[in-house]
Formats: sequence, C-alpha cells, structure tokens
Amino acid sequence: MSSPSSLDELIDALRCLPGVGPRSAQRMAYHLLQRDQRGAARLAHAMGRALDVLRHCERCNTFSETDVCARCANPRRDARQLCVVEMPADLAVIEHTHAFDGLYYVLMGRLSPLDGIGPRELKLDKLIARATDGVVEEVILATNFTNEGEATAHTVAELLGARGLKVSRLSRGVPVGGELEHVDAGTVAQALVERRTF
Amino acid sequence: MSSPSSLDELIDALRCLPGVGPRSAQRMAYHLLQRDQRGAARLAHAMGRALDVLRHCERCNTFSETDVCARCANPRRDARQLCVVEMPADLAVIEHTHAFDGLYYVLMGRLSPLDGIGPRELKLDKLIARATDGVVEEVILATNFTNEGEATAHTVAELLGARGLKVSRLSRGVPVGGELEHVDAGTVAQALVERRTF
Repeated sequence: MSSPSSLDELIDALRCLPGVGPRSAQRMAYHLLQRDQRGAARLAHAMGRALDVLRHCERCNTFSETDVCARCANPRRDARQLCVVEMPADLAVIEHTHAFDGLYYVLMGRLSPLDGIGPRELKLDKLIARATDGVVEEVILATNFTNEGEATAHTVAELLGARGLKVSRLSRGVPVGGELEHVDAGTVAQALVERRTF
Repeated sequence: MSSPSSLDELIDALRCLPGVGPRSAQRMAYHLLQRDQRGAARLAHAMGRALDVLRHCERCNTFSETDVCARCANPRRDARQLCVVEMPADLAVIEHTHAFDGLYYVLMGRLSPLDGIGPRELKLDKLIARATDGVVEEVILATNFTNEGEATAHTVAELLGARGLKVSRLSRGVPVGGELEHVDAGTVAQALVERRTF
C-alpha cells in the first residue's frame, strides 16, 4: 500500500550523492519523474558511461578515458616540473593561469585522518613512484591552504625531500588587486613573514 | 587537454537535479567516481528502472508500477471520499495518521502561474473526471497552506462545487500540543475565526 518499490529504490539510491538527505532525495526523484524524464534518462546514461570508460591516468592519476591522459602524453610539456594538486578542479585552475607548462599529479583527495584518509588511502606511494622517475626535478605543492591541505603538503614534502627532490609550495600572501583593509589578518601576517626583497 | 568528455557529460547531466549548480555537480561527479562507484552504478540502474516501470495511476495519479495502484484497487477503502493532495509525500503523511480510509487524488504539483503551471499543466480535467465518477460524494482538499496551495484549493473547490460535489478543506488552527505563545499570529487569528462551539 505504500509507494512503489522502484520509486523507493530511486529515492534511496539518490542518497549516495554527497549532501543529499532523505528529503532532498525524495524531492529529486519526484522532480526527475514528474518534470524532467529526459534529464533523468540522460543522467542515468552519462553515469553508466562514465563508470564504464573513466579510469585514472597512470601518470598523473586524474580521470582519463585512456591509460595515459592527453596532457601527460604531450611531449611539449616540461617533464622536469611536477605540480601536485588535490582535485582535477584545482588542476583546471592552474592550467587556466597559463603560467605553468609542467606536468601534474592529482591526489584525488587530501589527508584527512578524521575521515579515515591517511597516506595509504591517498596512495602516496603512487605519487612517490611518479616523482622519482628520474626526470622530475622539482615538485610544486599546490594543495589547498586549508588545515588538511597544509598537512598534506607537509607530509608529501617530507616524503619527497627525503628522496632528494626539490620541493616547493605555492606562496601565500595578499591577493593580486587585494586591498590590505579587506584581507584577513592571518594572510597579511603570512605576507609579512614571506616578504620578498625588491 | 581539458577533462575527459564522459566526465564533462556526467557533470552536465547532474545539473538536471533540482538545486544542483555547476559546483555541486562537479563535487558530486568526483565523489561518485572517486569514492562511491557502487552507489553510482546503483543510482544509474535505479533511475533507468524507475523510468521504465513507473507511470501514473489511472485513478489517483500517483506514481505506480501498475495501471491502477494497490490503494485505488483496494475494495475496503471508502470510495465516497476523495482527498486531494499536492504530492505523494503529502499522501504518505495523511496515511500515517490512520484517520482517513477514503481514496486520494495526487495533483503532482500545485498551481503556480509564475512557473507557468496553470490548470491545464496540472491536468485538473483528470481530477474533475475522477471526482465526477458518480461514486465520490465529498472531496477533501489537503493541499498545502501556502499561497500556492491555497490558490490551488480555491480553484479546485470552484471547479468541483460547480459540479454539485461537496468540497471541504483541512481545518487551520493551533497545532495539537501547541502553545499559543509559540504559534504565529496568523494561525491564532485563523483559529479564532474558525473556532468551534463545544
């Protein structure tokens, strides 16, 4: 006498999406079935296809449809510099600057002990193997400047520094165009500590 | 050189979900591919199946896997009372009270001129045909007490009243267990207007 099982299953399955609880899942299911069946069909198909064809690039670990992604296979990129980021979105931000023509390594996460993500879960051994290929000379850490991102950067720096690699970190400071009045005190303090001589 | 097309397609397809913008869609896609491939496969399957098997009950218009849902097909329910609700979730709330053993009609929405949902989009003619089957004696309007729900109730009441049906509406008033001090003035005013003699 309750709702049909295929509807219940859809509502339940939608809860695997991050940030989606029982109420939003119900709202989403009704919306898809009532107002956007084409969108739902497209989503089911796109999801199935992504699961089928996407894997991790053997070199940079980002999502790729080929064993080695196009960026890593590009001989015009400088293989001596390896930039480590947390997620593909971060890689896209750095690419967008057009200020870096080296290669990347995408961690696909960050160290987060509270969520049970340690060095093993983050597969840092894959990064170490990649960075010690004999070609990479400098590893640039571009993880986020959050507590977890900083902790990740420190751990990676120790692991790679112990193997004789030059390890650097994106600088912290006042944003370009930023007015001191509107920048938080922690950032200004950091900009003072890391001040550069003219 | 950018992200693989199947990933872009998945991110784009996720945006058909209500309340999901480009950033959440990206976060969802990464989460599914990186942390919950089983959940994603289950979701793709549940969505495909729901689209395949779910239709609207010919009588009450709710989602059903059969032409007529189990509730409408149940001869023990009182077919003389028809309760009109906006969504299946509202039906579930009323069923949960165990205070109603009539049948339902689910509008699958509400009148909302701003969203382009008028009487035609809401298929009110299907409700009229259902309510004038010669068996229904009373239609109980249980749309929400929002502006849109009230407008929907008024429109339906006019349409069905003109056809000689008894039309009623859920009462408004102070919630059971509610303390006047914590009930909004509009509700208290309504409870005064709709006061009942002992």
